[in-house]
Amino acid sequence: MSDHTSPQTRILVHGASGRMGQALLRLASERNDVVVVAAVQRSQPAQRVVDGVAHFAASELHGAPAFDVAIDFSLPQGFDPILALCEERGAALVSGTTGLEAPQLSALESASQRIPLLWAANFSLGVAILSELVERAAQALPGWDCDIVESHHVHKKDAPSGTALALGASAVLGGASPRYASLRAGDIVGEHLVQFTAPGERIELVHRATNRDIFARGALHAAAKLAGRAPGRYRLRDLLA
Amino acid sequence: MSDHTSPQTRILVHGASGRMGQALLRLASERNDVVVVAAVQRSQPAQRVVDGVAHFAASELHGAPAFDVAIDFSLPQGFDPILALCEERGAALVSGTTGLEAPQLSALESASQRIPLLWAANFSLGVAILSELVERAAQALPGWDCDIVESHHVHKKDAPSGTALALGASAVLGGASPRYASLRAGDIVGEHLVQFTAPGERIELVHRATNRDIFARGALHAAAKLAGRAPGRYRLRDLLA
Amino acid sequence: MSDHTSPQTRILVHGASGRMGQALLRLASERNDVVVVAAVQRSQPAQRVVDGVAHFAASELHGAPAFDVAIDFSLPQGFDPILALCEERGAALVSGTTGLEAPQLSALESASQRIPLLWAANFSLGVAILSELVERAAQALPGWDCDIVESHHVHKKDAPSGTALALGASAVLGGASPRYASLRAGDIVGEHLVQFTAPGERIELVHRATNRDIFARGALHAAAKLAGRAPGRYRLRDLLA
Amino acid sequence: MSDHTSPQTRILVHGASGRMGQALLRLASERNDVVVVAAVQRSQPAQRVVDGVAHFAASELHGAPAFDVAIDFSLPQGFDPILALCEERGAALVSGTTGLEAPQLSALESASQRIPLLWAANFSLGVAILSELVERAAQALPGWDCDIVESHHVHKKDAPSGTALALGASAVLGGASPRYASLRAGDIVGEHLVQFTAPGERIELVHRATNRDIFARGALHAAAKLAGRAPGRYRLRDLLA
Repeated sequence: MSDHTSPQTRILVHGASGRMGQALLRLASERNDVVVVAAVQRSQPAQRVVDGVAHFAASELHGAPAFDVAIDFSLPQGFDPILALCEERGAALVSGTTGLEAPQLSALESASQRIPLLWAANFSLGVAILSELVERAAQALPGWDCDIVESHHVHKKDAPSGTALALGASAVLGGASPRYASLRAGDIVGEHLVQFTAPGERIELVHRATNRDIFARGALHAAAKLAGRAPGRYRLRDLLA
Repeated sequence: MSDHTSPQTRILVHGASGRMGQALLRLASERNDVVVVAAVQRSQPAQRVVDGVAHFAASELHGAPAFDVAIDFSLPQGFDPILALCEERGAALVSGTTGLEAPQLSALESASQRIPLLWAANFSLGVAILSELVERAAQALPGWDCDIVESHHVHKKDAPSGTALALGASAVLGGASPRYASLRAGDIVGEHLVQFTAPGERIELVHRATNRDIFARGALHAAAKLAGRAPGRYRLRDLLA
Repeated sequence: MSDHTSPQTRILVHGASGRMGQALLRLASERNDVVVVAAVQRSQPAQRVVDGVAHFAASELHGAPAFDVAIDFSLPQGFDPILALCEERGAALVSGTTGLEAPQLSALESASQRIPLLWAANFSLGVAILSELVERAAQALPGWDCDIVESHHVHKKDAPSGTALALGASAVLGGASPRYASLRAGDIVGEHLVQFTAPGERIELVHRATNRDIFARGALHAAAKLAGRAPGRYRLRDLLA
Repeated sequence: MSDHTSPQTRILVHGASGRMGQALLRLASERNDVVVVAAVQRSQPAQRVVDGVAHFAASELHGAPAFDVAIDFSLPQGFDPILALCEERGAALVSGTTGLEAPQLSALESASQRIPLLWAANFSLGVAILSELVERAAQALPGWDCDIVESHHVHKKDAPSGTALALGASAVLGGASPRYASLRAGDIVGEHLVQFTAPGERIELVHRATNRDIFARGALHAAAKLAGRAPGRYRLRDLLA
């Protein structure tokens, strides 16, 4: 984290009333290199300022104060306006909004020629580095069997998890052909094992998440690292130390 | 592995009567990119050729046939002659001989200006890549706690294991400060866990060895990769795919 | 859990303002076989009733309404009055108060001739069953090596943890001689591994806690099971299904 | 193991030329409470005695010397004669022969009224105790999710493994409803995880086999414990310490 004299990255939180938005507002104060200057939520009775943060409704997005990065965890219908605002202001965008339509993905790709952009399904720094390690291991261990096992809470519907598929894509980049297994049990936040096996030896690369705050912390980290970068599309693992 | 038409790397096995030497002779036939041309052991009644391999005593080392790489798993007193022979012949040297004295380590360092050299405590390819992953993870995860837990059979005397210390050195290179714990139980060949922990999440990097053949296989891999390289001191992880 | 028509176990929470006390009040409503009728805390401005629960100060303990079981997570100085009250009322006592002095432990032992009593260092049901499994495994696997590895957050001072020592005591009852290793990292709530190793095979018995609510849930379970039992000293594992 | 003065259990090895048969002959000498008196294999040129063991062909089974227990790892067609011989001699039978037909299973059941009998798919003592622990855990942890994950070498065709299904049956006896996942990788001898998960905590019960000798050792243990018992059908877990 930067020292006190560095200018702080000014953040606009888009989707401030959701679980991630609330965590972002709460955890931003842990870091001295960022400051939340605006919090936008879908419906807001009237514009107001609380503890230096301007709270206002999505319909008044154009009135947002100056900011360096928008962090967006909203809904697909909220994505277009925040992308437009970032382009207009020349600000960076960090987004974890899921369910984007094909035209939205194209708009995102196109905007990356003008502003720095990061979209990710999982904002854990641990998963980001795991993804890099998996690609490297797959590349260095040709011919080893590759298995991915993921565990999540019983309410998770999709399997394999998006994160497991992303780790698998990293393994494929390294030349491996992963197989998947999924467990659904209790209230497990998220666990991923990527295993490489050869005769007589085995490598196990594991990530365990025990608290959802890590996703908000990772998004704040990404925002701090993305501000001021050249335009382009970034991955979380490009923004690690 | 190289295709059939590539010239095979000619290997001299030094310390051929030991457990590693025997495994090297047995497992070399699994690969078509290497061929064992000579097997040297401390005492040998008389020179003889078996299955195309010249077997002879250490005292007759000067009479060895042409070779590209020597693989040495012998004793400290056997190290100086094989190093000298490799320099004389311009051949590469792969050594896992333990207990070398300071002057021998100096001679090894000095010889690396003339021939390609690899000395390692652990020839598992899995451990080699783990070492690289540990350094990268430590570098990308500043401030995370780092713990190393190693398990070996009850006859192992030293703790932490040399491999655990080597993994710890990789973590230190990446900026971490690992702590160690050691378990001695049953006939465990060797297991190493390097764990990085932050609030709410954790990365576990594990290697499990279940068969000692992996060390001979790794040494053969190293020999095949080292032959013909520029002089210098190499690590096993420099010779991964 | 009992059906709706069963009479509910009436619970007095002693130490209601602490972290465990608050969790007990919050989680009791998850069960329909218990009802909190009183909440006692060290200092309380004035007696009051909130949602059917009588809140009052420890100094007014004698005025508590009728109850079947007291759950006590207070301080050593609070233990004597609640033990006395339970004996006076013929109620059961579930206590997790740590730091009790020798005379208090004697008083507890003596009171167990008149009321049902449970004191435990760890109220996780998972740890309770693990303790039973460990004793059985140790008994069935004579001659196997036994290792206990426990991991906790960096703020935990004692090592091995009280729970690790309790698991070790179970292993000793079964005839094993466990060795201990301790890791302190991140914010790990608590993990315990008890491992039995023989040549060629290994049993690993693991408990992972990810949320401290499990301790309050276990205490409520114990209270529901202890009410109406014969006088005596119980362990949590005696009250499992 | 019994002391030197106890009479040794006399064992007939049926299926002596197979991998298990060879391991039984080799490992029996590790124990002083058993002695192999006869080794039967499908085809055998001529009866002979080696190191005190009578080796003869299956066709000459009737000529076997006196024995207390037969250990049978043969083929379905070899099962009927050895069962008949055990009944005729009043000897116990330990069998791991797979692929038995329904009439053979009936014959086995019927014979258990006259001799002590054990048939098992897995002779690891660790798996036997795990099976008992799984049943107990399932019984004590009603409502917890139960998952079974098994890993074996890539040549194993059936999934889930017979051992995983047997562990699952134990879980069902205890009241759980397990789900299964299977991994096939490298040369893994066999690993089984039975996991019980509740909100906030988790129990993991794991068995890892690293050497197939454990199955022969378990069969010899079973033979030593079964000799002299009352007629009946036994499970390996009934014969643990």
